[in-house]
Amino acid sequence: MLTLPDVLAARRRIAPEIRDTPLIESQWLSAIAHAEVRLKLESLQVCNTFKARGALNALRRLAALHSGASLPRIVTASAGNHGRGVAWAAERCGLHATIFTPRQAPRAKLDAIARHGVDLRAIAETYEESELLALEYAKTTGATYVSPYNDDDVIAGAGTTAVEILEHWPDVELVVAPVGGGGLLSGVAIAVRGMKPSAQVIGAEAEASPVFTSSIAARRLVQVNVLPTIADGLAGNAEADTRTWPYVRDLVNRVVAVPEADLRAGVRELLAKEHLVAEGAGVAGVAAVAAALTPRGLRTAVVVSGSNIDLSRLKECL
Amino acid sequence: MLTLPDVLAARRRIAPEIRDTPLIESQWLSAIAHAEVRLKLESLQVCNTFKARGALNALRRLAALHSGASLPRIVTASAGNHGRGVAWAAERCGLHATIFTPRQAPRAKLDAIARHGVDLRAIAETYEESELLALEYAKTTGATYVSPYNDDDVIAGAGTTAVEILEHWPDVELVVAPVGGGGLLSGVAIAVRGMKPSAQVIGAEAEASPVFTSSIAARRLVQVNVLPTIADGLAGNAEADTRTWPYVRDLVNRVVAVPEADLRAGVRELLAKEHLVAEGAGVAGVAAVAAALTPRGLRTAVVVSGSNIDLSRLKECL
Repeated sequence: MLTLPDVLAARRRIAPEIRDTPLIESQWLSAIAHAEVRLKLESLQVCNTFKARGALNALRRLAALHSGASLPRIVTASAGNHGRGVAWAAERCGLHATIFTPRQAPRAKLDAIARHGVDLRAIAETYEESELLALEYAKTTGATYVSPYNDDDVIAGAGTTAVEILEHWPDVELVVAPVGGGGLLSGVAIAVRGMKPSAQVIGAEAEASPVFTSSIAARRLVQVNVLPTIADGLAGNAEADTRTWPYVRDLVNRVVAVPEADLRAGVRELLAKEHLVAEGAGVAGVAAVAAALTPRGLRTAVVVSGSNIDLSRLKECL
Repeated sequence: MLTLPDVLAARRRIAPEIRDTPLIESQWLSAIAHAEVRLKLESLQVCNTFKARGALNALRRLAALHSGASLPRIVTASAGNHGRGVAWAAERCGLHATIFTPRQAPRAKLDAIARHGVDLRAIAETYEESELLALEYAKTTGATYVSPYNDDDVIAGAGTTAVEILEHWPDVELVVAPVGGGGLLSGVAIAVRGMKPSAQVIGAEAEASPVFTSSIAARRLVQVNVLPTIADGLAGNAEADTRTWPYVRDLVNRVVAVPEADLRAGVRELLAKEHLVAEGAGVAGVAAVAAALTPRGLRTAVVVSGSNIDLSRLKECL
């Protein structure tokens, strides 16, 4: 199992190339929560997503492991943001990467991936199909598969987000983060348990893809029916036996399911009230606090995890 | 005349309450400028505008001058953002403030001012009329007038923006800032001349309110005809004999006039390309770089000065 030292090692590895993103007060959410709420703006991270952290950590580790030998080829599956992070990190590390995504992933994500000169295959119908294609590709070509969530280095890299939160705001009492496959939420929980065990951790998932609320209710990782959602980055089932499940089950205080209407309102209100852009997945934590799905009265840090949203979709929400 | 030590003194005064805002690379503008371009995000400053800097500097100074005695009442005129900054700073300093603005100022600005419990008078037709009303109010009541630009403490406070830019990016070769009354541009120029004389400073004003391009052409401060503009924060003539004129004339390399269409495109493209929200005035520098009105090949910092835009106006631009 990963623990805090793994996250701190990831931080030393990636800090020179990653932004220590702003943590700024939201008066809007503070009024709702009856306590100070601050937003951790991974929407302003390199690649406009926290995914740059895990991708860089994983690829730097791989490049170092093969230092001097021939470098491995990388393959991954992604709803879009992890692919963007891997494409960026591959370019920096001099690695070749093949990236499978859904055909319908936002242009904001696909165009950004393509700019890094990787082998982009936006051919799947769903995230899960991207994953099957990527795993098959790894098997047939010998490329190294880097899962967007079921990977220790990716989880540890994502956890560095929480290290920054706790360093800049030691008084924080609750950290809220979006959850899709569970990489970010696991990393955050590992860091918070290690640095401040008294603080709570809450995950916010899309009600349209209720993997972790359903699994917690069933006390085992279950498959769910995935409906269309504006939170494209959170949609899809996790791999059977994903290593994120025990972290979410054992280290996270609660996972809440955010209805679609609240996610849309979250995108709109975050823009109207705080003049910040975030994608549907990125506002899941914000929407959970705004809809009072999280406890009040606690000093709360909310991870705004990404801002890769198409203008057309943003306009729909306004 | 103000010099660097005045700006550094302002910085010491306001730093504990002001955000050292992010300075982040824009790949979009870097490609256009053929050199690295970074955005100084005063759009994420307290009050969502750089105006918080000058307002806090001026009011903390006034409060300190009258320490122990009865505190002065403050009056100001504003297109909106300076008023927001003064309202915020007055609350922090325990000062009473009366703020005159145009009736048509954006709700994003007026609502935020009103939340600080100040005496808001949104009754003027134009910025200039707000100024006349505020000056008249000062004369009849004895309140202290704090101009949004024609004030040494406001200018020095605004200049702290450039100090942060130069500290975080000593290699910068050009700083581009929006200019309306000239407070920000003067402060930036004073700081840059003192810290790195070799760097250039360029002001970007709205073509609809071409105070400084016209004045530089005439070699004296002139009055101009002000047309409607999306850059509401830059619209309006400056006071006769404003102290910003000699700074702009003597310390700034060039002022460019940004056409209305470029300002609207600037709001839209900044959102589409960098997922950042800014108001019309806030993007004047961005739009100048995007439209290649500034020299290419120089490492450029662009001040994104504020993000107080109404959702309806933002939608118009998209």
